[in-house]
Amino acid sequence: MSGSVFGKNFTVMTFGESHGPAVGCVVDGCPAGLALTPELIRPMMERRAPGKRAFSTARNEADEIKILSGVFEGKTLGTPIAMLVENTDQRSKDYGNLAECFRPGHADYGYEMKYGFRDYRGGGRSSGRETIGRVAAGAVAKLILAERGISVDAYTCAVGDIEIDRDRIDLGYGLKDPLSMPDPEASQRAQKYLEEVAAEGDSAGGVVECIIRGLPAGVGEPVFDKLDACLSRAVMSIGAVKGIEFGEGFNAACLRGSENNDEFYAGDGGIKKHTNHSGGVLGGLSDGADVVFRAVVKPTPSISKVQRTVDKYGNNIELEIKGRHDTLIAPRAVVVVESMAAITIVDLMLGSTDRILPGIRSL
Amino acid sequence: MSGSVFGKNFTVMTFGESHGPAVGCVVDGCPAGLALTPELIRPMMERRAPGKRAFSTARNEADEIKILSGVFEGKTLGTPIAMLVENTDQRSKDYGNLAECFRPGHADYGYEMKYGFRDYRGGGRSSGRETIGRVAAGAVAKLILAERGISVDAYTCAVGDIEIDRDRIDLGYGLKDPLSMPDPEASQRAQKYLEEVAAEGDSAGGVVECIIRGLPAGVGEPVFDKLDACLSRAVMSIGAVKGIEFGEGFNAACLRGSENNDEFYAGDGGIKKHTNHSGGVLGGLSDGADVVFRAVVKPTPSISKVQRTVDKYGNNIELEIKGRHDTLIAPRAVVVVESMAAITIVDLMLGSTDRILPGIRSL
Amino acid sequence: MSGSVFGKNFTVMTFGESHGPAVGCVVDGCPAGLALTPELIRPMMERRAPGKRAFSTARNEADEIKILSGVFEGKTLGTPIAMLVENTDQRSKDYGNLAECFRPGHADYGYEMKYGFRDYRGGGRSSGRETIGRVAAGAVAKLILAERGISVDAYTCAVGDIEIDRDRIDLGYGLKDPLSMPDPEASQRAQKYLEEVAAEGDSAGGVVECIIRGLPAGVGEPVFDKLDACLSRAVMSIGAVKGIEFGEGFNAACLRGSENNDEFYAGDGGIKKHTNHSGGVLGGLSDGADVVFRAVVKPTPSISKVQRTVDKYGNNIELEIKGRHDTLIAPRAVVVVESMAAITIVDLMLGSTDRILPGIRSL
Amino acid sequence: MSGSVFGKNFTVMTFGESHGPAVGCVVDGCPAGLALTPELIRPMMERRAPGKRAFSTARNEADEIKILSGVFEGKTLGTPIAMLVENTDQRSKDYGNLAECFRPGHADYGYEMKYGFRDYRGGGRSSGRETIGRVAAGAVAKLILAERGISVDAYTCAVGDIEIDRDRIDLGYGLKDPLSMPDPEASQRAQKYLEEVAAEGDSAGGVVECIIRGLPAGVGEPVFDKLDACLSRAVMSIGAVKGIEFGEGFNAACLRGSENNDEFYAGDGGIKKHTNHSGGVLGGLSDGADVVFRAVVKPTPSISKVQRTVDKYGNNIELEIKGRHDTLIAPRAVVVVESMAAITIVDLMLGSTDRILPGIRSL
Repeated sequence: MSGSVFGKNFTVMTFGESHGPAVGCVVDGCPAGLALTPELIRPMMERRAPGKRAFSTARNEADEIKILSGVFEGKTLGTPIAMLVENTDQRSKDYGNLAECFRPGHADYGYEMKYGFRDYRGGGRSSGRETIGRVAAGAVAKLILAERGISVDAYTCAVGDIEIDRDRIDLGYGLKDPLSMPDPEASQRAQKYLEEVAAEGDSAGGVVECIIRGLPAGVGEPVFDKLDACLSRAVMSIGAVKGIEFGEGFNAACLRGSENNDEFYAGDGGIKKHTNHSGGVLGGLSDGADVVFRAVVKPTPSISKVQRTVDKYGNNIELEIKGRHDTLIAPRAVVVVESMAAITIVDLMLGSTDRILPGIRSL
Repeated sequence: MSGSVFGKNFTVMTFGESHGPAVGCVVDGCPAGLALTPELIRPMMERRAPGKRAFSTARNEADEIKILSGVFEGKTLGTPIAMLVENTDQRSKDYGNLAECFRPGHADYGYEMKYGFRDYRGGGRSSGRETIGRVAAGAVAKLILAERGISVDAYTCAVGDIEIDRDRIDLGYGLKDPLSMPDPEASQRAQKYLEEVAAEGDSAGGVVECIIRGLPAGVGEPVFDKLDACLSRAVMSIGAVKGIEFGEGFNAACLRGSENNDEFYAGDGGIKKHTNHSGGVLGGLSDGADVVFRAVVKPTPSISKVQRTVDKYGNNIELEIKGRHDTLIAPRAVVVVESMAAITIVDLMLGSTDRILPGIRSL
Repeated sequence: MSGSVFGKNFTVMTFGESHGPAVGCVVDGCPAGLALTPELIRPMMERRAPGKRAFSTARNEADEIKILSGVFEGKTLGTPIAMLVENTDQRSKDYGNLAECFRPGHADYGYEMKYGFRDYRGGGRSSGRETIGRVAAGAVAKLILAERGISVDAYTCAVGDIEIDRDRIDLGYGLKDPLSMPDPEASQRAQKYLEEVAAEGDSAGGVVECIIRGLPAGVGEPVFDKLDACLSRAVMSIGAVKGIEFGEGFNAACLRGSENNDEFYAGDGGIKKHTNHSGGVLGGLSDGADVVFRAVVKPTPSISKVQRTVDKYGNNIELEIKGRHDTLIAPRAVVVVESMAAITIVDLMLGSTDRILPGIRSL
Repeated sequence: MSGSVFGKNFTVMTFGESHGPAVGCVVDGCPAGLALTPELIRPMMERRAPGKRAFSTARNEADEIKILSGVFEGKTLGTPIAMLVENTDQRSKDYGNLAECFRPGHADYGYEMKYGFRDYRGGGRSSGRETIGRVAAGAVAKLILAERGISVDAYTCAVGDIEIDRDRIDLGYGLKDPLSMPDPEASQRAQKYLEEVAAEGDSAGGVVECIIRGLPAGVGEPVFDKLDACLSRAVMSIGAVKGIEFGEGFNAACLRGSENNDEFYAGDGGIKKHTNHSGGVLGGLSDGADVVFRAVVKPTPSISKVQRTVDKYGNNIELEIKGRHDTLIAPRAVVVVESMAAITIVDLMLGSTDRILPGIRSL
């Protein structure tokens, strides 16, 4: 079944295996007239690229995006935008020993059962390289939203049990931080923790937080295409993400209604809420406050420690995974979370009534 | 935009406002030849119905489902199955005073901004009564899965900070428990807590857990229709659900790879895992273990306590919500979670390759 | 597979078997604020109903539509609109003798092969009664279009080899004509032809023509959701329709480019075309002229004459079909063609850019 | 709105403008394990390529397809297959004088109205080069069908008023014929006609016929995804196609039921029909006979003759189109019709019940 297509009006299809000729995406439904060049996409691509941060794989990926269609004289045509990155640094041999076994924590076993056949090199389709297409599409979506004053910002808010201090968030700093943490003090402690974990040949988990600002009230569609439902599908489709929560999230189980409800008030700027326990979503529609959600990213499954597993012939074996692997996936997931969130918002808005955001369809 | 349609091959559309003439659903894509009668659906409907449990609204809903199409001589035809429940106990007048204000924690404000017009009676489309259609469709999905030895079971696993003891789970007991908790001891404590909360005119939150057993490995579609992504959209689309997590979920942030990975082994029954930290999903595909997820249900937003809010004319007002309301939504969400999970699984399986489950399309 | 769902943003699902409890539809994605009552839908329903015309079945169908949801205080809410007609005049016994054989020209054999089981009463799902849901949804779509000055009008343009004279078209008359022909003179001749055909226990075919006026240029989406591609799917999905053509249609094969091209000119009212050989569609987009297409409706397959066929046990048999059957299907297909065309246009326009029709999404 | 996506389970997205960097497609949902190489696709690509036939443009297109993903060790992985052809022979300057006017019979005016901006070089997105992606995807679909003994063959059956003799059809010859006509005698006459037309700087129209053999009964989905409805959308989405008809098609209007019905009989090979007036589709499902349809292809709109039109500033002008243009589009549409038909059939079959074609999902 087709499963690489996302979105109804702003449709994104990604393609590509880690060690095939190329990875990329096609974006269909982008309004005409948007300024779009590789340069405008590059900053997002660079935030995704490995080799630029500590604790991430040393693999050098140029990841220069090519725009193959949908753009003329620097502006979008309203037609499909195909974008791709060629896979140059493939080094398949590193992965040769993994061709016949099922790595714990990876999709190998499921793919083998599903398709009876898989590209074992570097994870194939389930590789993190698939997210290149998501980020390129997400960059387009963010440009559309920026035209309307809507921003999408994600960052690492926790590594292991080390959390950022929300009174100290500095998004500008976070863009440069090796862990994408917007709090230098927390990042220092997290880096120290990761050094210990890495020294043991092990890996760590983390949490990514995302804030969407400037969204008008009423975005989302009752009842199955609720804003939070669509964002959840989008973000949970990112590899290694194992959970998502909005506003108070799981903490809401321990609150009372009087604590969790956000009271409304009317002020100069229209109707607002005194608090934002809802995370900006009520009944599946945006409520005019910032949309805030968190996604947990599991520890990198590829570790150097010896693990027990099974090969494709059904033999119990021991496995030691060599090669380059991130100690922590979360920092590189940050820009993918932003991308999926931006794609989701654009898709919902392009299908919304004019009342929500007059003229979004005609830039 | 159309937002009340779920699923690609097994498509469910729900309709209906709380106080309109009827609520229901149409299920398209159900294989032909499945035994289906109102009697087979009724047990799910009764688990959803209010008035049968303590801590739930006293409103007496017969909720007798009518099957209008798609069934002939007690078997499905392969054509759309329309099912509905007429709204008989409407008592609109109870809600009259809410017509002109935005209740905190509810979708009122978003609907007004989105549509410029809403059915204020009992929440209209955002009412819990909308879930009647989901449960009827879910009952059909569960019957399909049962034919293939797949079960979907949900229950309340936490109320406030009171959790069930997972060594003591008794699903049979849980079906009768007033809070849908499968642990009588935990339920006793939770009931006491809810009595206190209710006495204060307040409400409480909880967590619902769901286990899917018997699913073969390989269900789910890379990369956007991953099993956990689809389940997340499905479950997050249920009103009052604010988060979802699989397996270790948010706890995975604090684990190391060596702790979170599940090692495979080959035994008599084929390839298995020593543990199930993944919650039965790896790389977006089922891994052959039980699929386990949890969803947090926020405290009922309708409380008796006085709350500050705004009316539709922009005046700051005080609001006291009268009428019948559940102190805790979670117990009634249990069967809706089961339903959405079952619908999702059937939709994915009907689109899967034969390899996954030979013959599922021809019962 | 789900096949009873039409449209992406304006989504219509029909349900129901000829002799089941009810037939109907759910319309999802209708903008909020549209005036909608059963009275506004009735004229379309009456045009579809049999028993009001000569040459159509005598079956008396009240076909009173019930609106179950999506409307409050006479206006649409933006939520799904469920509508149904109960099947009252079922007389199953008339059809009993057809339970076990495959009628020539009907879907019986395909349904039996596909589902292994079918509702043989009156055609079940493949009955003309399924179109009740289409017409109810089409009536909603036509009301939306009327708000924007767009009209959709169909009529019978040929019966056998008797064609209307296009210089003599009188749409008002056509609404009352027993054959839905807008040319009384042609209708007289056609009625005489049908009397002869009916006297022999045989049936006849015809052609329905549809004109969409007031559509701005640019409606349709390159490349697969072209205006004519979408209209073709919509109209070809009507039972008994075997072909469709736009503008010159099949005649274009015999024309030269210089004859078939429509030259543009700029006048007071903007850019226009001297001719309309294109039928209002160029490159899959509306070109500002009237959209004109024709659909051929095959002769009613149920005839009184003895036919050879096979029963479900594989025996060669002879079959004589009794009961009430239209001599000509075309007149009743007219309103269904209009409905499917209107649904298609609304679906495309709700997904279009604002440039096309500012504000269509917010009535 | 997204309009470049086709199919639900076997999903094809095309991208590319005539004079952009590349054109191509992504195919999602192809079963794993299918042998696929550029060599297997090339024969279809060559049938589409211009410059190899008389009466077609002299433009030399290498059109070498690159497979970027979804294939490993010569077999499909079950993941998206991205394929592209780089645009090398662009010669934009030929088209420079067309940048500011609306060519009669072309999509220029609609695109300008829809997007406010367009790639005027060679038709941009509405160019025939867009069909490269369709043909590459169609080649994949045909390979899947071939595994199951299903063939799809199209050919030119008429040019102007010159028709092939159906008793003389030679498909093998047709593959080499300059007009793709499977009847050398008719082709000779047609070529002579085209020479005359070309000499006058004019163009001609034609009809393409397609036959699908080996399809089991029951393919197609009631009621909107009928086999003929889906095929009609697919084929009508090809540029220049203005009509489609199945079996007797428009001729059915003049037949009686007793003439148009196909009687069934039971013989050694199961249930068959004495005739095939239905064109292999009854009630929207395949009936076990060959599926036969015809599509009319209008005369090439680009002609050398002087035409009146309007420029984008609203001035009435005279236009003479220079450059290379086919006198007749039909021969090159043949392989595109085959491709769209094959894609449609695979999409419907992958969503069908097992009963129809056991194991199609697992090659």
